[in-house]
Amino acid sequence: MQQITIKAPATVANLVCGFDVLGMALEEPCDIMQVGLLDEPFVTVSSRDGFPLPSDPAQNTAGAPLLAIMEELGASRPGLGFEVLIDKKIKPGSGIGSSAASAAGAVVAANHLLGNIFSKQDLVRFAMFGEKVASGVKHADNVAPCIFGGITLIRSIFPLDIVSIPAPSLYVTVVHPQIEVRTADARQILRKNVLLKDAIRQWGNIAGLVAGLMRDDHELIGRSLEDVIIEPVRSILIPGFDEVKRQCKEAGALGGGISGSGPSIFMLSRDAAIAGAVEGCMKGIYEKIGLSYHTYITTINREGVKVYS
Amino acid sequence: MQQITIKAPATVANLVCGFDVLGMALEEPCDIMQVGLLDEPFVTVSSRDGFPLPSDPAQNTAGAPLLAIMEELGASRPGLGFEVLIDKKIKPGSGIGSSAASAAGAVVAANHLLGNIFSKQDLVRFAMFGEKVASGVKHADNVAPCIFGGITLIRSIFPLDIVSIPAPSLYVTVVHPQIEVRTADARQILRKNVLLKDAIRQWGNIAGLVAGLMRDDHELIGRSLEDVIIEPVRSILIPGFDEVKRQCKEAGALGGGISGSGPSIFMLSRDAAIAGAVEGCMKGIYEKIGLSYHTYITTINREGVKVYS
Repeated sequence: MQQITIKAPATVANLVCGFDVLGMALEEPCDIMQVGLLDEPFVTVSSRDGFPLPSDPAQNTAGAPLLAIMEELGASRPGLGFEVLIDKKIKPGSGIGSSAASAAGAVVAANHLLGNIFSKQDLVRFAMFGEKVASGVKHADNVAPCIFGGITLIRSIFPLDIVSIPAPSLYVTVVHPQIEVRTADARQILRKNVLLKDAIRQWGNIAGLVAGLMRDDHELIGRSLEDVIIEPVRSILIPGFDEVKRQCKEAGALGGGISGSGPSIFMLSRDAAIAGAVEGCMKGIYEKIGLSYHTYITTINREGVKVYS
Repeated sequence: MQQITIKAPATVANLVCGFDVLGMALEEPCDIMQVGLLDEPFVTVSSRDGFPLPSDPAQNTAGAPLLAIMEELGASRPGLGFEVLIDKKIKPGSGIGSSAASAAGAVVAANHLLGNIFSKQDLVRFAMFGEKVASGVKHADNVAPCIFGGITLIRSIFPLDIVSIPAPSLYVTVVHPQIEVRTADARQILRKNVLLKDAIRQWGNIAGLVAGLMRDDHELIGRSLEDVIIEPVRSILIPGFDEVKRQCKEAGALGGGISGSGPSIFMLSRDAAIAGAVEGCMKGIYEKIGLSYHTYITTINREGVKVYS
C-alpha cells in the first residue's frame, strides 16, 4: 500500500478583528498523520492513542473531506479509498484548529498520493466538509491557513476566494485554560445584528491589520488588533481573559485575543524575550485563578501542511 | 500681505466597501485657493465667482478649520488671521469632496504660511472642523486623502489614525448626474444596525481591497469592490445606478460604486481605452434617462493639496 506521513499545524482563526475571514498557521503544535491509498472504495480513520473515533467516516473530520474527494473523482477512480492513522497532538476543543488540522492534513496527503491533481484552493473546499462535521458550519478560516501556511484571508466563501497575506516574523504565545468552549456554543451566543458604527470600527481595524502585515509595521499591527464585536461577547466564556490581555500588553505584547472561538488566548510579540514575559503573565494569572492551563511559545508557520514522502 | 495659491483635489470617499474609512484623491477637478496671512485675528472667505458664502467664518467649510488653527495657536500668535479667496471648481453636492477640498486646501495653505509647523495628521484634525460644518459629522475620509494624496485609511477617528495605502496606476471615470443628494440625508437613511453576516462579508472585502491595492493586483481589487451594506440603501437615491454599474463592468471596468454619499458614481479601469468605453456607457445611460449629467476621466492624485508659493 502506498503510504505517506504528514504534519498538519495548529491555526489561529479570526486574528482578533477578522472574524470568519482571517487565520494564521502556527509552527507548533502539529498533528502527525499517516495516510495510505486503498484499492477499495472505503475510508477508515483511526487514532494512534486508541481514542475512540466515529465509526462512520462521514461523521469524522478527516473522513468527510476524503469522501468528498472520492465523490469528486467519481467514476474516473472507482476503486479509490483511504486509510488514515492520526497521532493527535492538537487537543480537540482547545480553539487552535484541531478539527481543521485533521481535515487539512487528510486532503493534502490524499492529493499527494493522487499525484497532486488538485489546487490548494480545491483542497480547502474539500477540507471544509470536515469543519461542517465539527461545528455544523462550512468555514475556511482554519483550514485555509493550515493548507496555505502563513496568514490567509477568506475574502469570500461562496465563491471561495483565498488571499495569502505576508506573515511577519513575530512570536506567538498561547495559553490554553483547561475549560471546554464548544465552537457551536461560542457561535450561538453571538448576536445576529451589530451596530453599524461597531462594524465600521471593525472594518477599519481589519484594513489596518492587513496593511500592517503587508508592510511589516508592528505598531500598526498592534493598534489594529482590536475587536469591538465578537470579543466582548465571547470573552465572558473565558475566565481571566481581560486580565491576560491587559497584563500581556503591559509586558510588551503587540496585541492578541481569543484564538478561534476559544478558550485558548494568543498574543503576538516582536521577540522571544517579550514572548517569554508574556508567557509568564499567563502562567501567573491562571495559577492565581487556580485553573489548569497549558502555555507554549511558537512562531508563524509559513508552509502549511508538510508532506514527508 | 504674504499670500500663496494652492490646488486642492476632489476625493472619492468610501471606495465601495470602505464606508467611513477609505478615501482616494483625484487628479481633477481641483479647487484653486488664494490664502493670505493677516495681522488681525479675523478670517474672511470669499468666492471668486461671487457665489454667496456664509458671512460667519465659523459656518464656512474653509473658515472653521482656520479658526481651529487660530484657537490651537492661541496666545502664541495673538494677531493671526487669514484671508481666503476660493475658485470653486468642484461642484458642491456632487459627492466628490467639495467641502473637504475647501477645508483641506485652507489648512495646508495656512500651515505653509506659518512655516509648516503642523504635521499632516494635525491638518486632517483641523480640516475635520470644516466637514462638521458641511455635514454635521467630523469625518476624515475626504480630507485625509485630499491632504495626504493617494488612498488613505482612517483606521480610527478617536484617536485619529491615518494609514497611507499605495495607489495603483488606474484610471477613474466619474459621472455626476445633476440631482441633489444631501450628505446628511444620505446618512440618515442608513440603518443603525446591520446583519453580522453582511458585516463579515464587508470586512472580507475591505481586507481584500487593501491587499489588492498593496500588491497592485487588479483582479483582486475588482473582486473586492463590493458593498453589501451601504450601496443597496443609498443607490436607490441615484437614478440609473444599477445600469451604470452593470454596463461599465461589462465594458471592462474593474468595479466602482457611489462616490461618497453620491450622486456621483466612479469606476476604476486599468487603461485609458477602457476608461473611455466606461464614459461612453455612462453617457448613453443618462442620455436615455433624460437626466443632465457631467462625465470626466482622471487618475489617482498621489501628492494631495499642491502649494504654489
